[in-house]
Amino acid sequence: MKTVKIGLLGLGNIGTGTYKTLEMNRTEIETALNAKVEIVKILEKDMTRDRGIEVPKEKFTTDPDEIFNDPEIDIVIELLGGIEPATTFILTALKNGKHVVTANKAAIAANYQEIMDTAKANNVSFKFEASVGGGIPILGTLTGPLRANKYEEVLGILNGTTNYILTMMTQEGIDYDTALKDAQAQGFAEADPTADVEGLDVANKLTILMALMFDKYVAPGDIPTTGISGITKEKIDAAAADGCVIKLIAHAKRLENGEIEYKVGPMNISNDHPLASINKEFNAVFIKGNAVDDVMFYGKGAGPLPTGSAVLGDVIEIVQHALN
Amino acid sequence: MKTVKIGLLGLGNIGTGTYKTLEMNRTEIETALNAKVEIVKILEKDMTRDRGIEVPKEKFTTDPDEIFNDPEIDIVIELLGGIEPATTFILTALKNGKHVVTANKAAIAANYQEIMDTAKANNVSFKFEASVGGGIPILGTLTGPLRANKYEEVLGILNGTTNYILTMMTQEGIDYDTALKDAQAQGFAEADPTADVEGLDVANKLTILMALMFDKYVAPGDIPTTGISGITKEKIDAAAADGCVIKLIAHAKRLENGEIEYKVGPMNISNDHPLASINKEFNAVFIKGNAVDDVMFYGKGAGPLPTGSAVLGDVIEIVQHALN
Repeated sequence: MKTVKIGLLGLGNIGTGTYKTLEMNRTEIETALNAKVEIVKILEKDMTRDRGIEVPKEKFTTDPDEIFNDPEIDIVIELLGGIEPATTFILTALKNGKHVVTANKAAIAANYQEIMDTAKANNVSFKFEASVGGGIPILGTLTGPLRANKYEEVLGILNGTTNYILTMMTQEGIDYDTALKDAQAQGFAEADPTADVEGLDVANKLTILMALMFDKYVAPGDIPTTGISGITKEKIDAAAADGCVIKLIAHAKRLENGEIEYKVGPMNISNDHPLASINKEFNAVFIKGNAVDDVMFYGKGAGPLPTGSAVLGDVIEIVQHALN
Repeated sequence: MKTVKIGLLGLGNIGTGTYKTLEMNRTEIETALNAKVEIVKILEKDMTRDRGIEVPKEKFTTDPDEIFNDPEIDIVIELLGGIEPATTFILTALKNGKHVVTANKAAIAANYQEIMDTAKANNVSFKFEASVGGGIPILGTLTGPLRANKYEEVLGILNGTTNYILTMMTQEGIDYDTALKDAQAQGFAEADPTADVEGLDVANKLTILMALMFDKYVAPGDIPTTGISGITKEKIDAAAADGCVIKLIAHAKRLENGEIEYKVGPMNISNDHPLASINKEFNAVFIKGNAVDDVMFYGKGAGPLPTGSAVLGDVIEIVQHALN
């Protein structure tokens, strides 16, 4: 039985979730693949933090080249987050002939074409299921089972922080500041919530969705983006009076003339639309295809284990199709 | 550019939907595959029915061996429905080295192991995304992007006829017989609705889901199955008083001791559960995985184009991974 060797960049929350998911389901994964899967090196400074997992000390390194230059490593998983040094690391790994898996929406959205071209030029896979919708298997579905469709439209609830805040405002009748503090207390919002509440995180995800669905790259900064910090109790009440709830929506649509229209912003969603009942920290992606018509995928858009599930799904796909 | 040649068994509603979907999206599909895709022969007696598509007369045959024995045919799509002669045709095609795609839940559920073993022995693919949930890409997701999970539970609304009837009874306050007649008038129920309303169609689908999720085959006849013909207005009102709606659910769950518990029958679903808002002819599958936690997939569980979308998704997968 062969062993697939993995180098992991980053052992923060998502890295730890990925490591845990592999330990938890190792038997099933290895049986399905007929191969052993081993994380052999981990780029991470902090060797002492209690992560609830046992990681042998000799796996840690602070030198990324130990991973990029190791000829035995087949796959590099990048879970550092942020645009740099992650993008440089992704490109270096690809150029060194490693297949790369990442959850890093910011790095992909900023450098989509260069990363895809580099993967292609080096004849290796670049996979990023976890970058949009966390555990929800949306990207693999769009590029896999739904591939026979021409995509017409996407409406996504792609940020758990803002969906939690809007749900609390709607269901509890509280104002924005109170709901934000509640989200921070529950661990659903960061101390500096700007990237979430101003829609920047969602714009990164819409860039990725549009690239896959419409073969069209639009930089996140070029997507008209409005966050939820201007949503008041009065606006929510007015939406309710119209039979709607307000959701922060990533929206892209193919127009009659073939152009793609796109934006991120709060939208009134009719109560009888499937997206209206997606509440709290959950995410959902609603797609219209010209053959399948309406489909929706719902699940946890974040969290260590759901995201680890998506990262390892990509690893399994690479082992099955690229390393066999 | 190579040409992938397909033999199609059956040009009824689903066969016609598959043919239409290919014609509609041929450019996108062929560009993505870098291959031409051609349905070269069709097993079908009725050459004259107006299907809204132009099919050259010379593609029709009434002799299945013309397809099985044609060395140029790479893929056989079986869309006859029913257990026989479909099962024999599927097995013959596999034994002749053809990859096979089908939407035929009854044939798969009845003969799962023999078909899978035959595909494996002949080193060809057998794919059946369209057999469960129509256009909803559930099987490819379970065996693809979600593969890193150990599955714990599935709750599926997998039959549009019964979901339409139950929705009408719930929303309009009408009785079962009136709702059934309405469903028949709308084209959502057949003249003889037995297989749908008694849960037999759903049992076939649960057999397939359990085989993929739990590696456990249970014949549809061995699944405890109750339909919806015994559901009264009073039962629906009683569920509503408890904050629930009644749905016909395919349910399987891994117990603490590792055993799998399974049944098909009406279930009270709490109004705040995502399945509660799946109405009319729509289907949905709610899955719990040990890493991803709860995910749900929603869409049209039937219809020529959604089902054609799933059939062609399987064809694309075969061209990408088995014929390359």
